[in-house]
Amino acid sequence: MSKIYVAGHKSPDTDSVCSAIGYAYLRNQLVKAGSPYASTHKEEAVAVRQGDLNPETEFVLKHFGIPTPELMTDGAGKKVILVDHSERGQTLDNIDQAEIIAIIDHHKIGDVTTPNPITFINMPTGCTASIVKALFDFFKVEIPKEIAGILLAAILSDTVAFKSVTTTEFDKKAAEELAKIAGIEDLMAFAMEMFKAKSDVAGKSPRDLLYRDFKDYMMAGKKVGAGQIEVVSLDLLAEVKDAIYEEMQKVKAEGGYHTIVLMLTDIMKEGTELLVVTDDPSVIEKAFGKKLEGKSIWLDGVMSRKKQVVPPLEKAFGA
Amino acid sequence: MSKIYVAGHKSPDTDSVCSAIGYAYLRNQLVKAGSPYASTHKEEAVAVRQGDLNPETEFVLKHFGIPTPELMTDGAGKKVILVDHSERGQTLDNIDQAEIIAIIDHHKIGDVTTPNPITFINMPTGCTASIVKALFDFFKVEIPKEIAGILLAAILSDTVAFKSVTTTEFDKKAAEELAKIAGIEDLMAFAMEMFKAKSDVAGKSPRDLLYRDFKDYMMAGKKVGAGQIEVVSLDLLAEVKDAIYEEMQKVKAEGGYHTIVLMLTDIMKEGTELLVVTDDPSVIEKAFGKKLEGKSIWLDGVMSRKKQVVPPLEKAFGA
Ligand SMILES: [Mn+2]
Ligand SMILES: [Mn+2]
Repeated sequence: MSKIYVAGHKSPDTDSVCSAIGYAYLRNQLVKAGSPYASTHKEEAVAVRQGDLNPETEFVLKHFGIPTPELMTDGAGKKVILVDHSERGQTLDNIDQAEIIAIIDHHKIGDVTTPNPITFINMPTGCTASIVKALFDFFKVEIPKEIAGILLAAILSDTVAFKSVTTTEFDKKAAEELAKIAGIEDLMAFAMEMFKAKSDVAGKSPRDLLYRDFKDYMMAGKKVGAGQIEVVSLDLLAEVKDAIYEEMQKVKAEGGYHTIVLMLTDIMKEGTELLVVTDDPSVIEKAFGKKLEGKSIWLDGVMSRKKQVVPPLEKAFGA
Repeated sequence: MSKIYVAGHKSPDTDSVCSAIGYAYLRNQLVKAGSPYASTHKEEAVAVRQGDLNPETEFVLKHFGIPTPELMTDGAGKKVILVDHSERGQTLDNIDQAEIIAIIDHHKIGDVTTPNPITFINMPTGCTASIVKALFDFFKVEIPKEIAGILLAAILSDTVAFKSVTTTEFDKKAAEELAKIAGIEDLMAFAMEMFKAKSDVAGKSPRDLLYRDFKDYMMAGKKVGAGQIEVVSLDLLAEVKDAIYEEMQKVKAEGGYHTIVLMLTDIMKEGTELLVVTDDPSVIEKAFGKKLEGKSIWLDGVMSRKKQVVPPLEKAFGA
């Protein structure tokens, strides 16, 4: 029997990978139990990833003893479930030749449309894993200890240990309950372990760092790329910053981008140095109310690409 | 304080109206209880309708003693929640000038996009009211007797008393539980009362009948209209059928339609006579595998516009 592939977005982050694993598990349990929710498609669900794991996700899966999902980048001819995204630019190649069974997400409503009614659950939470946790509760399916662990890790990752403005009470409550199941007593100590793994920039090439968590957008017909590297201190990036900037210039030329921004986010200082290459610096000024100083601007309190960088950019492009 | 308006689709049916009322009630209870789910917007939610009620919906609201929602067709400058639709063609005028707070639907994923993450809950159920019922359960909010009654009525209406192919186990389970709360013992007897009200075509103008449940679609760049009249017997329409057909021709010319189809659905025979006016009869043949005989074709077993008429038409237009 064919399978249903559960895929997060390109340049997978911890939420994309762990929510895919969690939702695939939940779905398989529902099919086994004969639940009406999953009744139309009875194939086994398996989580996949669209790219290399970042070091944080690697740490998380290893910590909870969960194997790395298979790589899959092409959706043609496959049944798929999308988690943590609903935009064509972030999804599997040839998505038009895939059958989308469901979408579970926490972003703005993207441009994926479907010919038939499907399950599409999107909530304005800080993390997809919080929604997956809520679905376990809704369907009264028990969460295994290691699944609780990776869903918790996803929440801590996406909300930067509840510091990001995207954090909601919904996420905090989900994290609390998951921590109990996973047997993790000191949430903040565990989060710091994750972030240290995430900050591991030593020995990585500038291009790897740029692409660690990189997404493409179309804004007013222009191609825009936005990446993010989160570190416990920006000092860790001091030596490679210039090389990364050169890489951004190259990628801009190769990929026909109008603008590429890269968030160098300092988790402890709770702010972001935004590296910018662009055809039109006035867009950056319009978006963030600050002139570019050399290669970058400092954005105090900015930690979320989704909520604090993409919307003002879109607005600046649209205006 | 401003309000949040909960709106179903244009040409409202029982599901659109009753799900709006049910979800508005649920939301207000969540805000009162300080639930994290509703925490960002604390305005009072009120159900509205985009057009006249059909006789079935009138019967249902009267039966359960619920007042008719206010008419509202323009979303400009308002906070809105959309239920039972996610397509621009079926939503409020000036939706781009509205702030969409949430969408609760059971159709294919439409073309509404949002600048920010919102709650978007879509499930492949037979009725939006089944999802609203599930949300009451999820948030552990008690369903008042009369709200249970109208949500039940919406399920019976959208699923044609569970006869439509769109019906899922999810709907049946929801209806059972709602019937208990509403104190309705004989579901089928209640459904027949509703359908008799719905079949009330006496004294209605041909244009009223055509627009009773009418939706606009864009198919491969062409404007297509699709309406439905459900009756307990087609005999009830024998006298007005020619006049309705003339009306379809007029509306086609006035509205610049490529095609208008009107489903005359016989609830008891479980089939549909499809009246057709079109620039290209071959599209109908391609969609349904049958040549037009005069003004119409008979489609045995076809009762759902959403699942059995719109998808084959879209496919035929796309090919
Ligand atoms: Mn996420
Ligand atoms: Mn409906």
